[in-house]
Amino acid sequence: MPKTRDILAFVLIVLPWTLLIAVWDWSPINDFKGKSYSSVERSEQGGQLDPHGQENKDIVQAGHTKDVYRRSLPWSDVLPILHVITPTYSRPVQKAELTRLANTFLLVPNLHWILVEDSQRRTPLVTRLLLETSLNYTHLNVETPKNYKLRGNKKDYTIPRGTVQRNLALHWLRGTFSHNNSNSQPGVVYFADDDNTYSLELFEEMRSTRKVSVWPVAFVGGLRYESPKVNTMGKVYGWKTVFDPHRPFAIDMAGFAVNLHLILCKPQAYFKLRGVKGGYQESSLLRELVTLNDLEPKAANCTKVLVWHTRAENPLLVNEGRKGFTDSNVEI
Amino acid sequence: MPKTRDILAFVLIVLPWTLLIAVWDWSPINDFKGKSYSSVERSEQGGQLDPHGQENKDIVQAGHTKDVYRRSLPWSDVLPILHVITPTYSRPVQKAELTRLANTFLLVPNLHWILVEDSQRRTPLVTRLLLETSLNYTHLNVETPKNYKLRGNKKDYTIPRGTVQRNLALHWLRGTFSHNNSNSQPGVVYFADDDNTYSLELFEEMRSTRKVSVWPVAFVGGLRYESPKVNTMGKVYGWKTVFDPHRPFAIDMAGFAVNLHLILCKPQAYFKLRGVKGGYQESSLLRELVTLNDLEPKAANCTKVLVWHTRAENPLLVNEGRKGFTDSNVEI
Repeated sequence: MPKTRDILAFVLIVLPWTLLIAVWDWSPINDFKGKSYSSVERSEQGGQLDPHGQENKDIVQAGHTKDVYRRSLPWSDVLPILHVITPTYSRPVQKAELTRLANTFLLVPNLHWILVEDSQRRTPLVTRLLLETSLNYTHLNVETPKNYKLRGNKKDYTIPRGTVQRNLALHWLRGTFSHNNSNSQPGVVYFADDDNTYSLELFEEMRSTRKVSVWPVAFVGGLRYESPKVNTMGKVYGWKTVFDPHRPFAIDMAGFAVNLHLILCKPQAYFKLRGVKGGYQESSLLRELVTLNDLEPKAANCTKVLVWHTRAENPLLVNEGRKGFTDSNVEI
Repeated sequence: MPKTRDILAFVLIVLPWTLLIAVWDWSPINDFKGKSYSSVERSEQGGQLDPHGQENKDIVQAGHTKDVYRRSLPWSDVLPILHVITPTYSRPVQKAELTRLANTFLLVPNLHWILVEDSQRRTPLVTRLLLETSLNYTHLNVETPKNYKLRGNKKDYTIPRGTVQRNLALHWLRGTFSHNNSNSQPGVVYFADDDNTYSLELFEEMRSTRKVSVWPVAFVGGLRYESPKVNTMGKVYGWKTVFDPHRPFAIDMAGFAVNLHLILCKPQAYFKLRGVKGGYQESSLLRELVTLNDLEPKAANCTKVLVWHTRAENPLLVNEGRKGFTDSNVEI
């Protein structure tokens, strides 16, 4: 019966090829091979703006910016991108902190790390570290104006830290995504300092942010954790904090994420550098973006802690300099 | 020409099936599906030994042990297993520290985490945390005898920390692997405290350890880093430290790894709990295992820093207890 044989042969040919194509399409190799990497380098991005003389006074333009957009985990074109903004500055534990942060980020799908150095130039240490991870990243830098820097070891909470760096990242996002606004991939913006600790669950919680999502943060305000107050309707109606709970948004930088579209729609929204009392940094941005009513509580209605405001001890280097021991060429 | 057609059909059938089988064999899904998970629970491991009355005085037997051997990354049956031993104790930042450590370990192939709590019982916090990672782990516990505990906040460097926990893990390894010694998979043992920072590169460096491998550690001994001294022949001949460089092995706990076979061959080798001066803990184990001549320098002949002895600041919880704020049911 040649006909039966033909049908059998046809099935035996078509079936495996179909499976093969399906497997190929599904396979993570395909993500690496099939897509193009975009890598842009702008070594002198326009003129350097005077931080005081421009319309947006709280943006300080980067002297040097470098964007490297690479693929690490299989990249999804459907899943919203998490644009994670991290200000960083040179100190003994910097490389250690960035190393463990990168290790966490490597486990998060569709994460784009915007690392902004507080420095005149992108430093070789950070540049190498980023090159050696397989993260998608954009490397920016801008130095905090001298009159806003901390003096010595004194902590002055009226002087905001990381503000011009976070603002530069917002500026970069607007410059990069606003033109193709209508058809661009959904995105979420999160401010992740380099000393905090992040559970992987946090990133999946924030991924569905429509406007601004919020959750508790441990080890802030002298408490085990601070949290938004959520009523039985799942609405935020205040803040569980001891320090000034009547701030418009009494929430730590690590406690919220913003939809990228909202950032692009409200181009005037930046962190304020001047005239901002301690603890009001977050409010200075958020009041430009949303009202309390818009907030979306995450982390099981703000009952779970998924981020910790950890801080590394300054290492005691009391024996440095003795006996000509240190080889400064060895990077730590 | 039926023959040509038959050959063509044959090729069209055999080729895709071969490819399909090859792809299936290569694919990481296969690693998850094809292998069995072994999960053992020993709720009362034999009788509880008196820490002072036994031959091996520095081992304190666990009251409760739990082994869960699960697969996370595709498991290789060829690659040596890294048995990473972490002593841990309850404190506000414990969950944060273990979370970021787990995030790092999730990126290391063939890692088996032996987490040993300093507690009377395995705590719900750590048990949940381990269950929720997809790491391969063994969860043990043993409480440090009262007379060896730190008193208050005073740091007494003659009182070893984590010693009985590390010893229990060594005991567990010997109990688990010594019987099928000859045909067991190669392994490497590493002591990784829960506050340190580890680069992914470190784990690949230690994986080829034949006896004991060594490398620099940052932020110890009051220095940017301490390191073994390596000569032009690639041999370790001393220690770059300010504090007591004439110790037999002047190296931090995070600065070495030991081949599992060596641990099994030398069953008397434990960390000493009594009569050990500060800084001599590592020597008390290593002198039972190797001589200086056996050491294998890693990390580009000990010129690269791949591990940092970071420490988390104790969070200031000065506002805890005020205004009845804290919900102690919320785990931090």
